Amino acid sequence: MVKTSTDPRVRLTDGELDRIDAYWRAANYLSVGQIYLLANPLLREPLAPEHIKPRLLGHWGTDPGLNLVYVHLNRAIVARDLDMMLVTGPGHGAPAIIANTWLEGTFSERYPSVGRDEIGMTELFRQFSFPGGVPSHVAADVPGSIHEGGELGYSLMHAYGAAFDNPDLVVACVVGDGEAETGPLAGSWLSNVFLNPARDGAVLPILHLNGFKIANPTVYARIPETDLLSILRGYGYQPYVVAGDQPMEVHRTLATTLDRALDEIAEIQSRARRGGRVERPRWPMIVLRTPKGWTGPAEVDGVPVEGTFRSHQVPLSEVRTNPQHRAELERWLRSYRPEELFDPTGAPVPAIADLAPLGGRRMSANPHTNGGELLRDLVLPDYREYGVPVGERGEPVVGATGVLGDWVRDVIRANPDRFRLLGPDEVESNGLGAAFEASDRTFLGAIEPGDEHLAPEGRIMEVLSEHLCQGWLEGYLLTGRHGVFTSYEAFIHIVDSMLNQHAKWLKVTRDIPWRRPIASLNYLLSSHVWRQDHNGFSHQDPGFIDHVVNKKAEVVRVYLPPDANTLLSIMDHCLRSRHYINVVIAGKQGAPTWLSMEDAILHCRRGLGIWDWAGTDTGTQPDVVLACAGDVPTLETLAAAELLRHHLPQLKVRVVNIVDLMRLQPESEHPHGLPDSEFNTIFTTDKPIIFAYHGYPWLIHRLTYRRTNHPNLHVRGYKEEGTTTTPFDMVMLNDLDRFHLVIDVIDRVPQLGPTAAHLRQAMVDARQECRDYTRTYGEDHPMVADWHWG
Amino acid sequence: MVKTSTDPRVRLTDGELDRIDAYWRAANYLSVGQIYLLANPLLREPLAPEHIKPRLLGHWGTDPGLNLVYVHLNRAIVARDLDMMLVTGPGHGAPAIIANTWLEGTFSERYPSVGRDEIGMTELFRQFSFPGGVPSHVAADVPGSIHEGGELGYSLMHAYGAAFDNPDLVVACVVGDGEAETGPLAGSWLSNVFLNPARDGAVLPILHLNGFKIANPTVYARIPETDLLSILRGYGYQPYVVAGDQPMEVHRTLATTLDRALDEIAEIQSRARRGGRVERPRWPMIVLRTPKGWTGPAEVDGVPVEGTFRSHQVPLSEVRTNPQHRAELERWLRSYRPEELFDPTGAPVPAIADLAPLGGRRMSANPHTNGGELLRDLVLPDYREYGVPVGERGEPVVGATGVLGDWVRDVIRANPDRFRLLGPDEVESNGLGAAFEASDRTFLGAIEPGDEHLAPEGRIMEVLSEHLCQGWLEGYLLTGRHGVFTSYEAFIHIVDSMLNQHAKWLKVTRDIPWRRPIASLNYLLSSHVWRQDHNGFSHQDPGFIDHVVNKKAEVVRVYLPPDANTLLSIMDHCLRSRHYINVVIAGKQGAPTWLSMEDAILHCRRGLGIWDWAGTDTGTQPDVVLACAGDVPTLETLAAAELLRHHLPQLKVRVVNIVDLMRLQPESEHPHGLPDSEFNTIFTTDKPIIFAYHGYPWLIHRLTYRRTNHPNLHVRGYKEEGTTTTPFDMVMLNDLDRFHLVIDVIDRVPQLGPTAAHLRQAMVDARQECRDYTRTYGEDHPMVADWHWG
Repeated sequence: MVKTSTDPRVRLTDGELDRIDAYWRAANYLSVGQIYLLANPLLREPLAPEHIKPRLLGHWGTDPGLNLVYVHLNRAIVARDLDMMLVTGPGHGAPAIIANTWLEGTFSERYPSVGRDEIGMTELFRQFSFPGGVPSHVAADVPGSIHEGGELGYSLMHAYGAAFDNPDLVVACVVGDGEAETGPLAGSWLSNVFLNPARDGAVLPILHLNGFKIANPTVYARIPETDLLSILRGYGYQPYVVAGDQPMEVHRTLATTLDRALDEIAEIQSRARRGGRVERPRWPMIVLRTPKGWTGPAEVDGVPVEGTFRSHQVPLSEVRTNPQHRAELERWLRSYRPEELFDPTGAPVPAIADLAPLGGRRMSANPHTNGGELLRDLVLPDYREYGVPVGERGEPVVGATGVLGDWVRDVIRANPDRFRLLGPDEVESNGLGAAFEASDRTFLGAIEPGDEHLAPEGRIMEVLSEHLCQGWLEGYLLTGRHGVFTSYEAFIHIVDSMLNQHAKWLKVTRDIPWRRPIASLNYLLSSHVWRQDHNGFSHQDPGFIDHVVNKKAEVVRVYLPPDANTLLSIMDHCLRSRHYINVVIAGKQGAPTWLSMEDAILHCRRGLGIWDWAGTDTGTQPDVVLACAGDVPTLETLAAAELLRHHLPQLKVRVVNIVDLMRLQPESEHPHGLPDSEFNTIFTTDKPIIFAYHGYPWLIHRLTYRRTNHPNLHVRGYKEEGTTTTPFDMVMLNDLDRFHLVIDVIDRVPQLGPTAAHLRQAMVDARQECRDYTRTYGEDHPMVADWHWG
Repeated sequence: MVKTSTDPRVRLTDGELDRIDAYWRAANYLSVGQIYLLANPLLREPLAPEHIKPRLLGHWGTDPGLNLVYVHLNRAIVARDLDMMLVTGPGHGAPAIIANTWLEGTFSERYPSVGRDEIGMTELFRQFSFPGGVPSHVAADVPGSIHEGGELGYSLMHAYGAAFDNPDLVVACVVGDGEAETGPLAGSWLSNVFLNPARDGAVLPILHLNGFKIANPTVYARIPETDLLSILRGYGYQPYVVAGDQPMEVHRTLATTLDRALDEIAEIQSRARRGGRVERPRWPMIVLRTPKGWTGPAEVDGVPVEGTFRSHQVPLSEVRTNPQHRAELERWLRSYRPEELFDPTGAPVPAIADLAPLGGRRMSANPHTNGGELLRDLVLPDYREYGVPVGERGEPVVGATGVLGDWVRDVIRANPDRFRLLGPDEVESNGLGAAFEASDRTFLGAIEPGDEHLAPEGRIMEVLSEHLCQGWLEGYLLTGRHGVFTSYEAFIHIVDSMLNQHAKWLKVTRDIPWRRPIASLNYLLSSHVWRQDHNGFSHQDPGFIDHVVNKKAEVVRVYLPPDANTLLSIMDHCLRSRHYINVVIAGKQGAPTWLSMEDAILHCRRGLGIWDWAGTDTGTQPDVVLACAGDVPTLETLAAAELLRHHLPQLKVRVVNIVDLMRLQPESEHPHGLPDSEFNTIFTTDKPIIFAYHGYPWLIHRLTYRRTNHPNLHVRGYKEEGTTTTPFDMVMLNDLDRFHLVIDVIDRVPQLGPTAAHLRQAMVDARQECRDYTRTYGEDHPMVADWHWG
């Protein structure tokens, strides 16, 4: 818990304000230097064209505001010995954040070639947004970041995710007023309904109204301030406004306001932690209104720049070729009085350097921001003990996620400080209701009689926003914890774009030596495309897999366990894994259990395999391969295999089931890729393969087009035909049903005789019979609904 | 403009309230009937198992609230002769909306087999959520809908989109309190900053707090009501609360509140349309707090159901097998007193039927909800006049979107009532700044000195929310207008999931005869993956194409124009097209112009073609095919072709450019697919194809795997390698550069001799030289930066 301003060490003095201003000027100077300079970093000589970068890339507009926030947070950290980190919504303001990490020494620790001296400053400037250097955004390369600001909207949810289960952490979060217009950010304010002040840390939102986006004013800066405050109060915050364009005034107001906010946080936490009922407090936040591009050129070529959208990127654009622009840049840089800020070696003068916190208290070195450093393994109950004993093959018929639910319940129990299950109001609906035996849902809103499984102390996160589930979980993982996000399969597309950014983060951090691996982001997708009995076409979309496999192979894994036991094995594997995105798709409705726990473990370890018991090739070369991936396609494939065994006993059918989709790719393309020799052994090099697949059929072609036997591969899958109908009608609509698979076999195995022609017609008739029955009675024909293996 | 309650015809009478309640009971009765009954719709005999559907699918919880809103809106429509439509956020409440469309006769007009009599009622019940019938959500099959409620979050943005440029339309929009938690919905409230009361219609949001989602209470129902109202007021609304669980009381309050809200809308519009300065008014809205599953079973098996989440779907689940449940259902149905509501033939009694509006005033028959009926062609200026005259091949170097901007400007001018350009603060940044010569941006917030191109009268929509741009445009298109959405390529993934739903809508409505085709949804994606000089990795993602091509072939088109003139031709085509999703990707930076306007037209008409002038095969069979799609890949391919012509003049190189990506697919897979014979003629059946592609290379394989020459196809594209660097370094990072393409040719054409080996080494050296130069000087090597064709 944080100290309060009753402590004399916290009180603000005038000398401190001067030092704060100097620090701010230093950070602003370094920000401008990064955008413009290749050499002459201390302006020892007049600026010449050769000192200027050939391509001016970077964003100035937000930098002075970020620098302002940073130095004031530093003051508070030192005064109160705060455990604080910063999430930077306007993450394109990397020059500011990098400047601060250099001032506090972290940048040089992480990148020893960039020392805190003149040579280091030269390199700091040169390498910014320069080929081979650090990118122009607050990317993973920047110490202290868990949030790259390229795609806007996710800062506040990341901040909350970081705060959960970190009671002593204060997460400051700058929200840009541009970002505030996005849906995901607008939907994030209510996160405080899910933050428990006794158990979780604090989030301090700082809404920075600099008034402009790339080319437009922002909405929140142009509605009446009373309206803005009304919104924020309505969301349960106590907003404090700090506004101005006179630095010393703003410094004083911001410092005292920050003190007030941190005092309130201390009071809230102290109240909540005294024991007794935990209630949702009114959390403080800050609305900071300062000019965009503050302290930059007021005008350029007669057009206003400071305080307008024109300062968004590079206010002076022709510095190399236009002497007036160059002179203006020099005036601008010198306005910060660098000679007062840096000593002759180029290092920050002690009055500045001493203002920064030390060691892990620096926001750029806070261990929470390099979550892998804090990561502790989950305590995982032995999943084998949760397995379903298999009697007859295919028995029992169980909901796979329901079986998993028991294990998830015990994972929650065993890890009360480092694991979260999240879902958009779909935990129960996805079959994981057993989890509520271990924990309620976190909820700080009013709880009423008749409510179930709701409590401030709950650990399961349910909110009807896939964005929040994803963003909270990302923040939680990036700060060194673990989690599972369960969603309906179709709607996980809502976070496609967030997945992109997280995948990029994982990809980049694999190559940053000081970034430690974090826990994988685990998706458990249920209520999938084939079983949307209640909801129909709008809920039918298996394309998330396609989206995910476009990401870098090193960071993505896709699993389609065919039954409950394989699902257990896969989820255990996922929760032990590091630095991946794991997508697991499993059904919730009753479905056959095909493999004993022992067989399931072996099968999952291999990722794919021949199911001898289902085929008729008995170790010889088959006539045809029936491949399947996904629970429903597996069911249809096995039913087809049975039909073939019964009606065409002479046909040698091999059944192959794929759990780990990445096994299909060549080993050159994915670390899980099966070597060609093994692929050829399993799938043959010349026999027809009828592949029943859970998703869009083209994906299987895209994964296998380099395989020898690809020309004989025929894939059935979801071809965007759906509605509210019965389960078997759904597979028929997409030609994935057992009867169609038999037809596909007959059409592709040339040597079959008249028995096959007869069988083919019987299959056509069976399809029609099923369709007619369903249209008449509204349910599936007993011959498919009551089918059992064997 | 709407009548006000000073008009005596608008005043509420007690008799009217009774009739309203009867209408509500009728709609509730019909809703329950749809969920449960197969027969015996008027309860002429006691309910028996055979009267019950075998599978009970549907959502009851939201129905009574929707029915309540519907009948009260009907009263207002009749009293005020309103032009009103309804957007139903809780669109899973289809039983309610369908019930109302049947009561007002529209359902029977659209589906003549479902008449307004006992047989029709039987069929109405049977076909709901039944194989072969209408889906369980307010899908496109439901008359009066422009919004399928499966994926939550988009109702309010659709409502605003429908209201733009429809001055006489009032769009009522029920927002569910579950949906309200989503980011996109939370971000929608500010839409009123973009609605001009003088020119646009009105949106009347009705936030329905029934308190629960699937398994949870909702956040907005469980924060203090003062907080909720504070949020809504802050967003510029005047919220009126209607709360209760006593029907007659709620009827009275809702009717008078609705009167008040509609009076205020009338006053706002009248004030704004008197002339003079248009300001952002405080629009009325309604907060409706009624029990979930109101009037349904209070308890089932001793557990509370009405007013809890347990009424979300089917409150009584065992009606076929459990006599108690069946008796409870019968009690429930009879509680609506059907004998008072329907005459002996099964038709609604006159007192009820007469309450509905007539003809096109019925919300279910409002022509705006079947936008194709109102659609008028755009007036399109002759794009050929905007073309760039080509001098030397490749000259001039221009930004393609900048050239297009002039044409877009004139499209805006020529269509002041039916065309909108939308973008997330990226219109200027994407090179379309010329549009502002024709129109300002719509903005009803405060406008300050120094602002540019902002006015309430503006027609260009800019808000930093891809969700809003997409949702507004969908609403606008679905009500019969036209538009273009311009975005950065990477961030259009933010609306992946919205795209899914719109594509489904287009797919389904192709097969609904009474739905007329609407204008296509046109994406102009610029600031694409190859030219993110300022922003780096977070802004680099070309995967939207992959996402789109998974949709039904009949509704998607993807274009990659290689230069300014082809872009003009393509955009003209897209704006004339109907019922598609067109994705156009084009650069904004200076790039060569390859084709004269005349050639561009021919090339775009063909969709792909051999560029004779760039190759050396001169009509003979080539040794190698260089294929390209996208502006940057085209540039690199032509540079590679030039290198080959110069260094290996004996090698016969064919250059093929692809504009219309769908041409690559087999004609069986896509209507634009090239017949195999033509494909073979162009790409040969046995020569190596080196394909330089704009996006992820696997997509080209997925499109072409069935082509004869696919085994010889080698694709270069974006393989997820990026950062902030120079344009040429970006293509080098992904092996798409000219030098690497030459290496690819040499490695794949076996007959080349020692000259080729020498050239290969030169290419390797050139790559290294370029990389070194860039790392040193921060810009591209002059040999690539200053390259010109010829």
